[in-house]
Amino acid sequence: MKTIFTKIINKEIPCYLIAENESAIAFLDINPIARGHVLVVPKIQVDYLFDLDEETYYNLWSFVKKISSAIKKTISCKKVGVSVIGLEVPHVHVHLVPLNHINDMDFSNKKNIDSEELKNIAKKISQVV
Amino acid sequence: MKTIFTKIINKEIPCYLIAENESAIAFLDINPIARGHVLVVPKIQVDYLFDLDEETYYNLWSFVKKISSAIKKTISCKKVGVSVIGLEVPHVHVHLVPLNHINDMDFSNKKNIDSEELKNIAKKISQVV
Repeated sequence: MKTIFTKIINKEIPCYLIAENESAIAFLDINPIARGHVLVVPKIQVDYLFDLDEETYYNLWSFVKKISSAIKKTISCKKVGVSVIGLEVPHVHVHLVPLNHINDMDFSNKKNIDSEELKNIAKKISQVV
Repeated sequence: MKTIFTKIINKEIPCYLIAENESAIAFLDINPIARGHVLVVPKIQVDYLFDLDEETYYNLWSFVKKISSAIKKTISCKKVGVSVIGLEVPHVHVHLVPLNHINDMDFSNKKNIDSEELKNIAKKISQVV
């Protein structure tokens, strides 16, 4: 069964796109825990990070680095944090979260950001990738 | 100034060692949020993950994959989660956390595990790296 991320990759579902390359895509999390909370997803549908083939795994971490740099240029933060949990959607996704305080990586603390603002954030980040 | 992790790497401070190679080390977090919560740390003292040189960065993710596999063989869990926050100790460290529930990656929920048990867990994981 196609995951919601595969449907986004296939353009069957819209997203706030940041960037994509041949093996991964980055877009805003629509349930963000911070302004500029991005998901980086390999285009191949694999459930568990450590089951990815070598090439996809290293391409993913390469793309993560590139996207994090663009987030940091756009969103005021000390660091961009990384989290891979993956017990909800069975398709590898790396959370990139702008951090200013230790507690900012709190997935129970969703932020309400309207679609106009999400569009605006995605545009700004995508321009510096 | 040397971080606590550099002191561990230099063997000035003891740790519950899992494994090490030329560029990284893995040991148990002594403030664990789960049984088998491991830190993977590059031997070079750099504050921010995305400031690591390319070779160290990819070696780190390679070592993370190897250590995660050993954790999963040892500790009963659905997945090994990954988190890099880094607003406390200014030395890159990747948290590897055995996960069974979505809320298991909760850094405010420290587990009390005595030193005998930590020693035991480290031994078991290290044997299958």
